[in-house]
Amino acid sequence: MTTASETLHRLGITLPVPTPAIAAYVPFVRAGNLLIISGQLPLLDGKLLLTGQFGAGLTLEQGQNAARQCAINVLSQAQAALGTLDLIRRVVRLGGFISATPEFTDHAKVMNGASELMESVFGEAGRHARSTIGVPSLPLGAAVEVEGLFDISP
Amino acid sequence: MTTASETLHRLGITLPVPTPAIAAYVPFVRAGNLLIISGQLPLLDGKLLLTGQFGAGLTLEQGQNAARQCAINVLSQAQAALGTLDLIRRVVRLGGFISATPEFTDHAKVMNGASELMESVFGEAGRHARSTIGVPSLPLGAAVEVEGLFDISP
Amino acid sequence: MTTASETLHRLGITLPVPTPAIAAYVPFVRAGNLLIISGQLPLLDGKLLLTGQFGAGLTLEQGQNAARQCAINVLSQAQAALGTLDLIRRVVRLGGFISATPEFTDHAKVMNGASELMESVFGEAGRHARSTIGVPSLPLGAAVEVEGLFDISP
Repeated sequence: MTTASETLHRLGITLPVPTPAIAAYVPFVRAGNLLIISGQLPLLDGKLLLTGQFGAGLTLEQGQNAARQCAINVLSQAQAALGTLDLIRRVVRLGGFISATPEFTDHAKVMNGASELMESVFGEAGRHARSTIGVPSLPLGAAVEVEGLFDISP
Repeated sequence: MTTASETLHRLGITLPVPTPAIAAYVPFVRAGNLLIISGQLPLLDGKLLLTGQFGAGLTLEQGQNAARQCAINVLSQAQAALGTLDLIRRVVRLGGFISATPEFTDHAKVMNGASELMESVFGEAGRHARSTIGVPSLPLGAAVEVEGLFDISP
Repeated sequence: MTTASETLHRLGITLPVPTPAIAAYVPFVRAGNLLIISGQLPLLDGKLLLTGQFGAGLTLEQGQNAARQCAINVLSQAQAALGTLDLIRRVVRLGGFISATPEFTDHAKVMNGASELMESVFGEAGRHARSTIGVPSLPLGAAVEVEGLFDISP
């Protein structure tokens, strides 16, 4: 059986150094068997990959790529919390926040960039519950934000 | 004592065939005693019951009806997950997302359509914590989305 | 060691009488070791401290003060649920909803008003995971809403 860390390696994904929280909180908290990861922005090398609103110029492909980066940052925090992704028994839930105009309707397609990354890395255990919503704006002007909830081995 | 499934029957509510997730995720995940249900739209027979924004033409009554349908779809997923609603010990939390203009203020009244359904079906065990917020837009243009968290018997 | 209730006293914070839920739900639910607090508005003596949108006239200082009041109301509900804040082992997560225009980018700074209150009261145990997002509008026209998740002693 392939572990999540082996799969990451095979996919050629190097988890970035986890970004410190941008304010007065922490990026993860463990409570019992649950690991809660704070909302992650599409930061890459300290810069936002995508700002602005869907429905006002951003493409679906840009959005999926940004959502994928948010998910990678969620995993980077999970690894910092646990030492290894291999302690994750299940990706329980992702919350997806998509900066969008009132007319935009493809929030779910944007968020798939994050969900598909989880499925690639964890297989069946990466299939998660999800809520995706539009927002008028996000911290720092980010176009996407993703939060995570994981079930971890005791 | 009346069970939740008996109450549903008495209320004349037939749970629909649960809708598959509209994207790369699953409609429910169980983690320990918690059952997490993905955000549900006001789908009825495969069609959205209500699209658009509150504060821009939709009535409170339409909204409460749509929120109630979201809650029915949450229960339909819970039944698919558990086999029976009677394993639910407590409705723990509902999250309510109300597509609204900046001027709209009656989000809580719209969301009551979902909350009152839970109370009708589960009685005291249906009284839940709740966060209700406005959003500019939702997947597929839906006017309301509701997610659920349940405490279930081991 | 100083307890959370002693710290509150030293900070000169008197928890208000907890506000009843403004609709068909309850302000808190306990599930196992988790305590879930419903979204709290910046109510003080029955009146909203701040309405409107950031990016459209409200200042950062007003926002931080309103977020702090939301956090005080979260604690007031936690105390009503538990009898004493001293049963709280960890502030696990805050969700922050900031009523904002598409152009606003300082959501995290507003939300710090809530996060810093938790750290003042609970010290290291007050450091929490957090998701902060913009919203077009909130119940009653509030400018900020904060929900809470706590890990409590069995």
